[in-house]
Amino acid sequence: MNKPVAIYDTTLRDGAQAEGISFSVADKIRIAERLDAFGIHYVEGGWPGSNPKDLDFFDAAARRKLKQAKIAAFGSTRRAQAKCQDDPQVAMLLKANTTVVTLVGKTWPLHVKEVIRTTLPENLAMIADSVRYFKENGKEVMYDAEHFFDGYRDDARYAMATLRAAADTGADAVVLCDTNGGALPSDVARITAEVRKALRCAVGIHTHNDCGLAVANALAAVENGATQVQGTINGFGERTGNCNLTTVIPCLALKMGRDGIPRENLRRLRELSLFVDDLANLRHDVRQPFTGATAFTHKGGIHANAVEKLARSYEHIEPELVGNRRRVLVSELSGRSNIFMKAHELGIHLDKDSTEAKDVLRQLKQHEHAGYEYEAADASFHILVQKLLKRHKSFFNLLAYRVIMDRHGNGEHKIVEASVKLQVKGHVVHTVSEGDGPVNALDRALRAALEKFYPSIAQVKLLDYKVRIVDSQLATAAKTRVIIESTDGTAIWGTVGVNDNIIEASWEALVDSVEYKLFKDEQKK
Amino acid sequence: MNKPVAIYDTTLRDGAQAEGISFSVADKIRIAERLDAFGIHYVEGGWPGSNPKDLDFFDAAARRKLKQAKIAAFGSTRRAQAKCQDDPQVAMLLKANTTVVTLVGKTWPLHVKEVIRTTLPENLAMIADSVRYFKENGKEVMYDAEHFFDGYRDDARYAMATLRAAADTGADAVVLCDTNGGALPSDVARITAEVRKALRCAVGIHTHNDCGLAVANALAAVENGATQVQGTINGFGERTGNCNLTTVIPCLALKMGRDGIPRENLRRLRELSLFVDDLANLRHDVRQPFTGATAFTHKGGIHANAVEKLARSYEHIEPELVGNRRRVLVSELSGRSNIFMKAHELGIHLDKDSTEAKDVLRQLKQHEHAGYEYEAADASFHILVQKLLKRHKSFFNLLAYRVIMDRHGNGEHKIVEASVKLQVKGHVVHTVSEGDGPVNALDRALRAALEKFYPSIAQVKLLDYKVRIVDSQLATAAKTRVIIESTDGTAIWGTVGVNDNIIEASWEALVDSVEYKLFKDEQKK
Repeated sequence: MNKPVAIYDTTLRDGAQAEGISFSVADKIRIAERLDAFGIHYVEGGWPGSNPKDLDFFDAAARRKLKQAKIAAFGSTRRAQAKCQDDPQVAMLLKANTTVVTLVGKTWPLHVKEVIRTTLPENLAMIADSVRYFKENGKEVMYDAEHFFDGYRDDARYAMATLRAAADTGADAVVLCDTNGGALPSDVARITAEVRKALRCAVGIHTHNDCGLAVANALAAVENGATQVQGTINGFGERTGNCNLTTVIPCLALKMGRDGIPRENLRRLRELSLFVDDLANLRHDVRQPFTGATAFTHKGGIHANAVEKLARSYEHIEPELVGNRRRVLVSELSGRSNIFMKAHELGIHLDKDSTEAKDVLRQLKQHEHAGYEYEAADASFHILVQKLLKRHKSFFNLLAYRVIMDRHGNGEHKIVEASVKLQVKGHVVHTVSEGDGPVNALDRALRAALEKFYPSIAQVKLLDYKVRIVDSQLATAAKTRVIIESTDGTAIWGTVGVNDNIIEASWEALVDSVEYKLFKDEQKK
Repeated sequence: MNKPVAIYDTTLRDGAQAEGISFSVADKIRIAERLDAFGIHYVEGGWPGSNPKDLDFFDAAARRKLKQAKIAAFGSTRRAQAKCQDDPQVAMLLKANTTVVTLVGKTWPLHVKEVIRTTLPENLAMIADSVRYFKENGKEVMYDAEHFFDGYRDDARYAMATLRAAADTGADAVVLCDTNGGALPSDVARITAEVRKALRCAVGIHTHNDCGLAVANALAAVENGATQVQGTINGFGERTGNCNLTTVIPCLALKMGRDGIPRENLRRLRELSLFVDDLANLRHDVRQPFTGATAFTHKGGIHANAVEKLARSYEHIEPELVGNRRRVLVSELSGRSNIFMKAHELGIHLDKDSTEAKDVLRQLKQHEHAGYEYEAADASFHILVQKLLKRHKSFFNLLAYRVIMDRHGNGEHKIVEASVKLQVKGHVVHTVSEGDGPVNALDRALRAALEKFYPSIAQVKLLDYKVRIVDSQLATAAKTRVIIESTDGTAIWGTVGVNDNIIEASWEALVDSVEYKLFKDEQKK
């Protein structure tokens, strides 16, 4: 019974509930495109009825062409004692204009009575009406049964009736949600099997990690007939997080042999994991199964030795299958094959065994050791490799810059000013500009200096700017990593800078961004 | 069949295999004493034969009186073709002078042949001889069957024969080890049940988290007859870590109702988890089930509202049972109830219906709209509410600051300098400082100005510094939000600053951090 398992990603909705995570619309679009390229089947973009900003994402998403992923909008069943047509939350959901609509509704009598305060039959009508309404509007409909396992334990008959209300009105799948993360795998296994027997539509599973069992619960459901798994990249989510897709996907594919994500795409799992961490501005969890930096690291003397003798002895899978690598000695180097894959993707040909390639690898290692990270900074990676291969063309040289900031009293007297002195095409250009802050002032002065020589610079806009401390133990004296996202209206690219000084790091990322744009323009000619 | 489950801790041995962890003998003693006080049954202290330093620990431990925990020394079965009496590794193990000896041996024919390179019958003799030897020396003996699940899949008969070799010569327990972390819960359940049927001695389980399933695998084994669980505090261990005892212990006690650790001791679970993190000098995993800072944190507006109505709805257990607490985040999506719960939590009394309270709410909304986020910035929230209530006391006034940065050419000539002019207790103080970057320079100048008036400022250290653009559409001209984490060695607090100018935003967060420290010190007096 090797039915394919569909992967439903809710990083952009449930994942964004995590403390400290907030994605911009540009972040969300970039993540959705990556998930699509990776082979994720459903990408849930947000809850238009609860956060009006989410409509901007659905607007932007509608204008992009995804390869295969379907975009889903999340919302709840209609309000009690109302019609779908008159419910503003339902209207927003329709307005999101997605292929898929995912509706959450109540399973647990306790919640029906105490939280939404209506009757048990009215709750069933709310489910049935809402599913029917979106089916009539041509949607693929998922029904998320909130608190399903708690509800089932409390009143199995009623819990099943809520699922039937959705299934009988045409829901394409009912999804069993362990909303508070309190269920055990043996219970999930038994209950999923019973649901599977009782319904004809597809069954999905949505779990949380409050007992450290989110992945185990998802697998238990799949073993008992579920064919859709909901979760988030890196397990982002409220409290302890959601089911971690970067763990559950390789478990399904490599351990249980289930179809779903194409096997060859798994080789980019680690890359995907780091990319999403970077956009969330979160520290990478080095111990994360499959994708963590230490996931295939061997320290103990006997182990390291034995692994060399016989890798299969001490590793449950080959690290390369998920884009990771074995580390035996202490070394920061990213996987060789990753680097070649990435270079290839950017149109740079590197012969694996050439001296050139080894040189690039060695120098990349030094950069990574210094705190650079290229997962979300393709453009900087491109420029770096070009530089290492001596194929880089500089469009200008920096002679000097200066930044002055002054504040008196409560800020009624303030100055932020940057001056830049460049050599461009044989000319010395000296510009000065004010700004809201030092980076903005530098950015303006740089553009002012370049625009008359390279008018296309005017198209470039900075979309986002993120800063992390690389070694946080040293706080403000530690290294600062800046990641900038830029666009020229068609493409979006990322650049990175690292320095003790945040202004220096920002300058580095700004220069990469501008140079990448000029390089791309030249290529087109 | 509610047999008690014994907890066997290997933080000091397998946990110390983790990258970046190394415990001193003093650390180890402190941890062992804590584990004992918490009610852990077995504390494995090290491998005397592989690390001679471990004997120092066993020496020191022997001189202490533990309340109830038994200390175990770990080692392997005797070498092939040798006698126990002549094996130096076995001798060291005896020399550790512990109540318990835990012996690891081979299960998997592949390993017998390729790693230790002996015959299958000789391996059985090695197990039997070694167990018998330590039993004759009066030890309680655990037999750890390495790679048990891989071995069983490969050759179930031989795997069972290795267990019998241990059980028949008097092992008190055989422990099934998923050494490479590759097993699935359904396999562990089935195989453990079969072992249980075949043997009369106790069965234990030792799992690793390579598939994110270490806890699930341990629970599956217990559900099928295992009565000993091995693991580490916070899941420390090689690669992705071992079975996390801080997760498995509350699952066993609170979810499965199994006896083991006394229920009242669970209230110190979070404290134990933080203690071990501190000694390992590792950052606390805020998302860790049960013990993490965000494990009972509520963010989304609907949830926070519902939790107040009915905690049981959204929490799988009461946080106090494991020494944790409910936290409600104040975020963009937050409604009224979030804010009042938060104020209450910080010890600020607000009457919901007073004009004062409505004023605070209105102004908080403006702040959030301007980009402030108080989720990770309790201290700034505290100061803000005090200010809004006109109860805030200022410890100094800023008169002026200036930052100058200069760079020429490739950076061979660089200056980063900040000067600060403050009024403190009626005096005007003017200080100047260099720094790696502008924020570091300002931080130094500020401390230099304050330290002679408020010496306790010297205790404050910045732990982390994070920067985000609030409205990313405007990029470098947009608002910058800075979040700073500070500590004075005992407490940790977060502060936030928002401004167009990153330096201004950082300054704001720095000032809040310093003022919060001074406010706390005053409260203590």
